Amino acid sequence: MIVVMERDATEGQVADVVERLTQAGARVHRLDAERVTLGASGGSMGREHVAAMAAVAAALADSDAPPLVSRASPPSQTSPPSQTSQTSQTARTSPSSPSSPSSWREARAIQLGEASHTGPIVVAGPCSVEDEETMERIAAGVAAAGAVAIRAGAYKPRSSPYSFQGLGEEGLVRLRRAADAHGLAVVSEVLDATHIAVAARYCDVLQVGARNMHNTALLRELGRARRPVLLKRGMAATVDEWLNAAEYLASTGAEHVILCERGIRTFETSTRNTLDLNAVVVARARTHLPVLVDPSHAVGLREHVEPLSLAALAAGADGLLIEAHVDPDAATSDARQTIDMETLARITRAMRAAVGQRGVAGATAD
Amino acid sequence: MIVVMERDATEGQVADVVERLTQAGARVHRLDAERVTLGASGGSMGREHVAAMAAVAAALADSDAPPLVSRASPPSQTSPPSQTSQTSQTARTSPSSPSSPSSWREARAIQLGEASHTGPIVVAGPCSVEDEETMERIAAGVAAAGAVAIRAGAYKPRSSPYSFQGLGEEGLVRLRRAADAHGLAVVSEVLDATHIAVAARYCDVLQVGARNMHNTALLRELGRARRPVLLKRGMAATVDEWLNAAEYLASTGAEHVILCERGIRTFETSTRNTLDLNAVVVARARTHLPVLVDPSHAVGLREHVEPLSLAALAAGADGLLIEAHVDPDAATSDARQTIDMETLARITRAMRAAVGQRGVAGATAD
Amino acid sequence: MIVVMERDATEGQVADVVERLTQAGARVHRLDAERVTLGASGGSMGREHVAAMAAVAAALADSDAPPLVSRASPPSQTSPPSQTSQTSQTARTSPSSPSSPSSWREARAIQLGEASHTGPIVVAGPCSVEDEETMERIAAGVAAAGAVAIRAGAYKPRSSPYSFQGLGEEGLVRLRRAADAHGLAVVSEVLDATHIAVAARYCDVLQVGARNMHNTALLRELGRARRPVLLKRGMAATVDEWLNAAEYLASTGAEHVILCERGIRTFETSTRNTLDLNAVVVARARTHLPVLVDPSHAVGLREHVEPLSLAALAAGADGLLIEAHVDPDAATSDARQTIDMETLARITRAMRAAVGQRGVAGATAD
Amino acid sequence: MIVVMERDATEGQVADVVERLTQAGARVHRLDAERVTLGASGGSMGREHVAAMAAVAAALADSDAPPLVSRASPPSQTSPPSQTSQTSQTARTSPSSPSSPSSWREARAIQLGEASHTGPIVVAGPCSVEDEETMERIAAGVAAAGAVAIRAGAYKPRSSPYSFQGLGEEGLVRLRRAADAHGLAVVSEVLDATHIAVAARYCDVLQVGARNMHNTALLRELGRARRPVLLKRGMAATVDEWLNAAEYLASTGAEHVILCERGIRTFETSTRNTLDLNAVVVARARTHLPVLVDPSHAVGLREHVEPLSLAALAAGADGLLIEAHVDPDAATSDARQTIDMETLARITRAMRAAVGQRGVAGATAD
Repeated sequence: MIVVMERDATEGQVADVVERLTQAGARVHRLDAERVTLGASGGSMGREHVAAMAAVAAALADSDAPPLVSRASPPSQTSPPSQTSQTSQTARTSPSSPSSPSSWREARAIQLGEASHTGPIVVAGPCSVEDEETMERIAAGVAAAGAVAIRAGAYKPRSSPYSFQGLGEEGLVRLRRAADAHGLAVVSEVLDATHIAVAARYCDVLQVGARNMHNTALLRELGRARRPVLLKRGMAATVDEWLNAAEYLASTGAEHVILCERGIRTFETSTRNTLDLNAVVVARARTHLPVLVDPSHAVGLREHVEPLSLAALAAGADGLLIEAHVDPDAATSDARQTIDMETLARITRAMRAAVGQRGVAGATAD
Repeated sequence: MIVVMERDATEGQVADVVERLTQAGARVHRLDAERVTLGASGGSMGREHVAAMAAVAAALADSDAPPLVSRASPPSQTSPPSQTSQTSQTARTSPSSPSSPSSWREARAIQLGEASHTGPIVVAGPCSVEDEETMERIAAGVAAAGAVAIRAGAYKPRSSPYSFQGLGEEGLVRLRRAADAHGLAVVSEVLDATHIAVAARYCDVLQVGARNMHNTALLRELGRARRPVLLKRGMAATVDEWLNAAEYLASTGAEHVILCERGIRTFETSTRNTLDLNAVVVARARTHLPVLVDPSHAVGLREHVEPLSLAALAAGADGLLIEAHVDPDAATSDARQTIDMETLARITRAMRAAVGQRGVAGATAD
Repeated sequence: MIVVMERDATEGQVADVVERLTQAGARVHRLDAERVTLGASGGSMGREHVAAMAAVAAALADSDAPPLVSRASPPSQTSPPSQTSQTSQTARTSPSSPSSPSSWREARAIQLGEASHTGPIVVAGPCSVEDEETMERIAAGVAAAGAVAIRAGAYKPRSSPYSFQGLGEEGLVRLRRAADAHGLAVVSEVLDATHIAVAARYCDVLQVGARNMHNTALLRELGRARRPVLLKRGMAATVDEWLNAAEYLASTGAEHVILCERGIRTFETSTRNTLDLNAVVVARARTHLPVLVDPSHAVGLREHVEPLSLAALAAGADGLLIEAHVDPDAATSDARQTIDMETLARITRAMRAAVGQRGVAGATAD
Repeated sequence: MIVVMERDATEGQVADVVERLTQAGARVHRLDAERVTLGASGGSMGREHVAAMAAVAAALADSDAPPLVSRASPPSQTSPPSQTSQTSQTARTSPSSPSSPSSWREARAIQLGEASHTGPIVVAGPCSVEDEETMERIAAGVAAAGAVAIRAGAYKPRSSPYSFQGLGEEGLVRLRRAADAHGLAVVSEVLDATHIAVAARYCDVLQVGARNMHNTALLRELGRARRPVLLKRGMAATVDEWLNAAEYLASTGAEHVILCERGIRTFETSTRNTLDLNAVVVARARTHLPVLVDPSHAVGLREHVEPLSLAALAAGADGLLIEAHVDPDAATSDARQTIDMETLARITRAMRAAVGQRGVAGATAD
């Protein structure tokens, strides 16, 4: 049995639950999670009994879905109320606007984290951070196309240790500057716990790449950073494993977790990966977290990004993460799968049209 | 080099091409295809030279896409002009209406075969042929939902030799009767060359299942039957292999070949197969053949069929092949992935709405 | 429940079983298998009760392993006693020695079919049948290396309809002649039911390729031919599906079925397929049929065939099916994965040495 | 071009190479590797020219195999001479024997790291660290069976954050004590850079699990720890990616890297993973690093571990990593795939017998 305590449970209340379980014959251990969580094995006390105790939020069977991210639990478990947002807002300091915490940035980030409730959104940008002028032009294009956030890699996961590993903090500075000039939130990947503090100064949402989805040490640290996290599905991860990775984030404190399907490895060689929209519909049925799709990595060929973007939205995806550039052929990396700004704008328009039809509130308010 | 002769090439013209190639040093062999096709290796004669000879339709490099089904070649190579249709119409005898070849059936079949030019269509019905009364009710529902054809299995591919193998001809009789009562074309699977003659008496389109995509003997026989064929992708077939299987059909005479993606095998266990929409967009870029999607087998769970149907259409699929039943829980087989008529109607309405928006002529005129 | 009757069950005995099951409330249907097999659903009669009836060989739950090929059932179910062999011997006519049915050929074929009881064997030869002189040299090398049979393709499964499809009967004539000159059995693939009669005149063992493992129509016809069959695993077939395909053969009359693992499709691109020795040990635990391994197709690179051959034998494989040629670089097809005769002999010697050590009777008696 | 400098290259020599490349028109950047490594793009200077410069160890094309781990490069690049071993020996402090650096432990670790040169070795032990008494009994059994090292998890990678995450340092203390009592080296997994310092106090070889193979931040930190590392292949990693992960370790200082295949993810469900011996033979052809096989995770079923162990060795594996326990059914985790000590001893005996036959010097001298 997994016993999840209320966020405001006191140590006295925790001790009381532990004692009663122990008296009923259970062995109880406290799990390594931000919110007090107890594992209890054996004993004669039923789950409904435990659930009724003071300060207990939920008592779950071991075989149940990951409790915090599952659809059964209220979104408020991971998508927190306003006071939590304020905390996180205060904690964040922006180098570009240190004195006035830009409320629009907070709003943008929450827009991503709550995309499953407010309608689909688009995040777009180059694979790697480009030079300043190019970043400015890309940010302008991304904003004009109606995206809510810009993405670009400053820390790059590379197969070879001899490949360029990204611009690091210098890249984040450029990315933030370009984003701020155009009212965009920033999404960028961290590869390592040591990147988190730096990246959190510049990024509104921290991304975990497919290669790190199983890196539970990184997930725990990110959860403790209490910053929205975009979690890509591992290249051979099942939906179950993906949701459990999200639970690692949520159980250590992440308030907004955004899932992102980016294609899996199969026998097919005509495309870079195999976009798995089955996983998107299954995940959305099981979790209240927003589920984005990255069609760029999923197919790897720019000419196919548009129809697959529309497919992802039609399947119910809560948004798209797309590699886009003002001059795709000149992109530093992944040029083959990077679309231009015209295509990006066409995708965004189609998304809004579809949303309008369905009577859902538009994702981007401008 | 592969030399494809015109359909009306005379033996004299063929002999002339062979002689000229041989004189130029090539070894030439005649391939086993309905339309005269020559393979030439070595020799000094260039392809453009050969292409210019009398009665030569095309001269292709060995590495080129399958010539008859590739997008580069005119659809007329596989989607034949009216006189061919007449031939096939005359050849077909319907047990239910032997004296008056029902022109609507011919039209329906061609509608499927040309879906890539006329707009998306829906084929729906139960996994296996049910009893007469149920088939009548299903056909009524399928027609009311706006589908162009009904599907149901009379010859069933089963893993175990001890599982029920289908009703055979008796099933086809029921299927045809139900279809005729509601103006629907009939699509049904054949497992064996010996099924073709029987199935061709009752079906407008003959289906090759995923397990037989690599069965080139069956493909050749089906091509020679000159009947529209719906070719499912093998469960581990690459897009290249799938298009080459279609070329087997086209090269032995099939005039309408309809591709159908039905999910591939991957490591994921939360769904029956993995729907591969990448393959749909790649196949559509390479071939002029219509590409349908079977979301029922691709996901295997009825609650996910609707969003994946919409996704397939948004990706550009030329139509859907769906397992539907008036009482899904009572379906003889595959109940878990079978949708009801209300869901089917909702999918069809959404398809038409999307088509209307895009300004494409509706697929079903009624 | 599946009720398998004894081979010599009379129609009266069958009728009796059907009547008693029906009286007990079951619905009973006769399955399409050579040996009378009944499917019974519902009813109150237990399996042990049915199993005790006259002429009933076995009564199995639907979820049991395929009855005829499973390890639980006696090998005699598929590896038949001498009188059956005589029947098949008489039925077979060899064009090369019509008057004297060569008893050694019969013995060789049975050696393959019973490899799981007598010790590992090797089958080797070129991918495609080569010219007469080359075939003679290859057969000499294969025999000298200690193989029990020669393999070569006369009917070739090809992705493209324009690729060379094999020499057909002319190829089989050459293959038989070369084999007879060196005391080798012949294994060759059939793609189509129409090939069976021709191939059975020249081959001791008929092969089903990976692309046809799911072709149940072909499997049924091959079972009825009562000739030993070598059944390759499909490229994405589970072990369960593979054993069920073998049951299709056994249930329609095949007396010797030989399984052959040849690599599956995975994401890995450095080798042609992925050799799955897990499947070999799992299959051997579930069935009494011999399980061979084809390392040539499994890895696709000749330099890796030897270590993988030794690995297959160490895993318990009952033998090897290897592509070998006197001049691998000159092989008509699959040159990249074809080994030379020296390597073949080294593999065979290592196999015998290992067998000698384990104290198992040598596979090749000469 | 990638320019790898000699280990003892001076900054002056590096500067000289950079200057000459720049003058020849190349853009040069210094890569993040322990040994100075330069990336150079463009320019007119050929590789052979650069390779001839002072203090340059190698100049490689970008498409070449990872330079330090590839077979082409001398093993001394990663398997260092004695003086390096001394450094690492001095640096290491053992809590159990702080004053006398146990030379046998050093020797054992190097035995693992050089298994590709000295003959196959076995590492065995329970999935998770057990209680002290059980650990003692297991270590006794593992040593008696002839293994060179014991393995057991103190930091456990778990899908769910609520599952038991291992005993941590307390587990390492127990593991070291049991190993020391029986002359065994210790192999244990780290999940996080923060584990390295602690684990290095107790372990001779640090393991990277399949879920962290792509975790390049962890790989870099481990390389810098200059401790032998056992690197498991990722569950969907290609051989290329696996060797590049090893290069991450080698390029930041790891002197002994040991590869370990543990099964990949495929469609097959009858086993936990699919053992890929193709990858073992391909990896051994490309790298001079030892390649072990973990049959326990590769198949997941204890009854199949023995034949697959023999298969791995026959394929040329340099050793085995096996889950073994004195009472497998009582194992804390992975009981289903854990073998008993009798089976372990049988595998080890078979390994030595095979080695003896091949005339290779036995791996374990005692």
